[in-house]
Amino acid sequence: MGIIVQKFGGSCLIDAAAVKNAARIITEEYEKGSGVVAVVSAQGDTTDRLIAKADEISKKPAKRELDVLMSAGEQLSAALLAMAVGELGYPCVTLLGWQAGIVTNSVFGHARIRDIDPERIKKELAKKRIVLVAGFQGVDRKNDMTTLGRGGSDTTAVALAAALNAEKCQIYSKIDGIYTADPSCVPDAVKIDEIDYDCMQELSFLGVKVLNPRAVELAKKYGVVIEVKSAFHSDKTGTFVKEDANMEKMLISGVTKMSNVARIFVNDLEDVPGAACGIFELLNQNDIQADIITMATGNNGKVDVSFCVSGDDADEAERVLLESGKYGASDVICDKDVAKISVVGVGMESHPGVGIAIFEALSNSNINIMMITSSELRFSVIVKKDAADEAVAAIHKRFKKY
Amino acid sequence: MGIIVQKFGGSCLIDAAAVKNAARIITEEYEKGSGVVAVVSAQGDTTDRLIAKADEISKKPAKRELDVLMSAGEQLSAALLAMAVGELGYPCVTLLGWQAGIVTNSVFGHARIRDIDPERIKKELAKKRIVLVAGFQGVDRKNDMTTLGRGGSDTTAVALAAALNAEKCQIYSKIDGIYTADPSCVPDAVKIDEIDYDCMQELSFLGVKVLNPRAVELAKKYGVVIEVKSAFHSDKTGTFVKEDANMEKMLISGVTKMSNVARIFVNDLEDVPGAACGIFELLNQNDIQADIITMATGNNGKVDVSFCVSGDDADEAERVLLESGKYGASDVICDKDVAKISVVGVGMESHPGVGIAIFEALSNSNINIMMITSSELRFSVIVKKDAADEAVAAIHKRFKKY
Repeated sequence: MGIIVQKFGGSCLIDAAAVKNAARIITEEYEKGSGVVAVVSAQGDTTDRLIAKADEISKKPAKRELDVLMSAGEQLSAALLAMAVGELGYPCVTLLGWQAGIVTNSVFGHARIRDIDPERIKKELAKKRIVLVAGFQGVDRKNDMTTLGRGGSDTTAVALAAALNAEKCQIYSKIDGIYTADPSCVPDAVKIDEIDYDCMQELSFLGVKVLNPRAVELAKKYGVVIEVKSAFHSDKTGTFVKEDANMEKMLISGVTKMSNVARIFVNDLEDVPGAACGIFELLNQNDIQADIITMATGNNGKVDVSFCVSGDDADEAERVLLESGKYGASDVICDKDVAKISVVGVGMESHPGVGIAIFEALSNSNINIMMITSSELRFSVIVKKDAADEAVAAIHKRFKKY
Repeated sequence: MGIIVQKFGGSCLIDAAAVKNAARIITEEYEKGSGVVAVVSAQGDTTDRLIAKADEISKKPAKRELDVLMSAGEQLSAALLAMAVGELGYPCVTLLGWQAGIVTNSVFGHARIRDIDPERIKKELAKKRIVLVAGFQGVDRKNDMTTLGRGGSDTTAVALAAALNAEKCQIYSKIDGIYTADPSCVPDAVKIDEIDYDCMQELSFLGVKVLNPRAVELAKKYGVVIEVKSAFHSDKTGTFVKEDANMEKMLISGVTKMSNVARIFVNDLEDVPGAACGIFELLNQNDIQADIITMATGNNGKVDVSFCVSGDDADEAERVLLESGKYGASDVICDKDVAKISVVGVGMESHPGVGIAIFEALSNSNINIMMITSSELRFSVIVKKDAADEAVAAIHKRFKKY
């Protein structure tokens, strides 16, 4: 019997009708003779509502307890989905992270899976039960509950697919695949049939929310083929994420926008070895990732450093830099009124035309580029937030011929 | 170091302000040098809202999954309370049923505690942490989550107090003690200072909701002294429930009302041995408790049996009786328009005056008695629902001189 892992995002479980629809998809797969393991996220905006409840009580709650709070969201949706599956007349059982053998490290809020002990799941599958696993959560070696961070249910699904040697791993959301750009912003964006892990990971990092980048990394490591598809058009083939995807036809996989981003300037650092290094060590200690780092030496013998961080980390980054004494800098300025537009594709650096095309497209639209970075797989620019949608559309249009 | 167990009901955790108030009570006890274990219920109406969510999906959800759903309520309130305690600057840790070592049997929805392994709690107390335990829930030997049924958090608290050999077990709600009648219905009801386990258990069975009867039973078994008190007037002494309570002054502990009750008539049964027995065996198999059983032989050689059940069980009782073929009865009739009024006190049967006083009080108020039962500790009558409050007041007034 082959095993199928299906993951249902919060948008597929938003109300009773959606839960029943997910139950239909699960039982249709079960009817084909597969062993079905379905991983669930919290319903709709549950996670945000739980955070708001915590916020009423403490601005800096203990991370361990925040995980206890948050993991209840997936517990609720797993139980409700089990009831819907039961209502259709199929045998099923829910397992929470600790019951499903999902063992993590103890980094509350951002735990990483260390090990999966699939014994209980296998036992339930052997009894011909559909197994519903609460995503996003695990348990550490001290028996404390942990969560894997936003998008963690994708990681749960891929990790289970790997541990169970599953045939398929389907990621259901309300979106029917990966597009060359966000269709709500670029109407002629095209659905991609296949994409390889590296490009998908870049897209995920750079703003495509339908799939978590850590999950893609894990899928690559264990060779798990992912299909991203819509729960509301479950008959339509989605986008396959796999090694050696057939992407010959296109150099560019997609154009992405990330609005939740901030640019931080650290002005007039002493121009001595290690000054900038200290800044990035400090950010790293505080679990803040920096991107698009630029340095410029002024004529006063001082150095200006600027970089981007996630919008969620912006205040924290500013605070730790100020508290550290700014490494002697005159100023730390945080600008949240920016967006990051990226073009992702294979072999970007060997195609200098990509950069030129981006500059042309933005220049023709009269959009100013504030920062630039490029790598083998992507080319990103920072623009003013209110120009972001136009920038995506202009770049997407320019690349249609690629 | 002495250990104090405190239990906070849903009404003491209804919103952020109430949660902070509970945290204040807990930390004040901790400051006195006690080891504090606080057991929490779900916030306010969480349990009802979760049941409503389940109901949207399935009218008869699997009990195991209902327990997964329901136990999230206490998980949430434990985490929120932990944040409030943390905000006051005290070290604390939450433990869910499975983490706190609360091992139950596998009767989902009505599980009974088999054993408590207090190792983890003791370890946390030794680290000088306040321990917050999610009440109402446990884990069975297969590692499945269970719940203890309504009011189960009281049972969790008393069981933990016994297992930890606690000095005190305080049950906090919004009510400041046990009264001789419901003060909202009888304004001159009096708070009881002390009451013994047996009378308290009767009061709980007969409608006093502030303390669960199973918890009282357990407290009696292990000699746990309970103090019932208000979280919103935590400085005021509440009611102590203990062995050999000083109740010499009063024969009558209280007058109670239960509106959630139904009377069931089974008419014209064959008058042969075992006919009635079958009915009560059937109810027992379906986990339905019957009370105030009466039988009357008519002049047609048939027997009429009637009894009361909880309002929650009324439809189910009617259904199973009808499905069973009614044991040959002509009719099964369910009347939900009734209430049970009870007088609880020590040595009722040796004071025949009690029954007479009740009859007098009701007769003077022109209230018809539909059924009667008495035992060593109580005297109960069934009246029409709309006469219930008046009946309580009349009886309470009549007994003021006792």
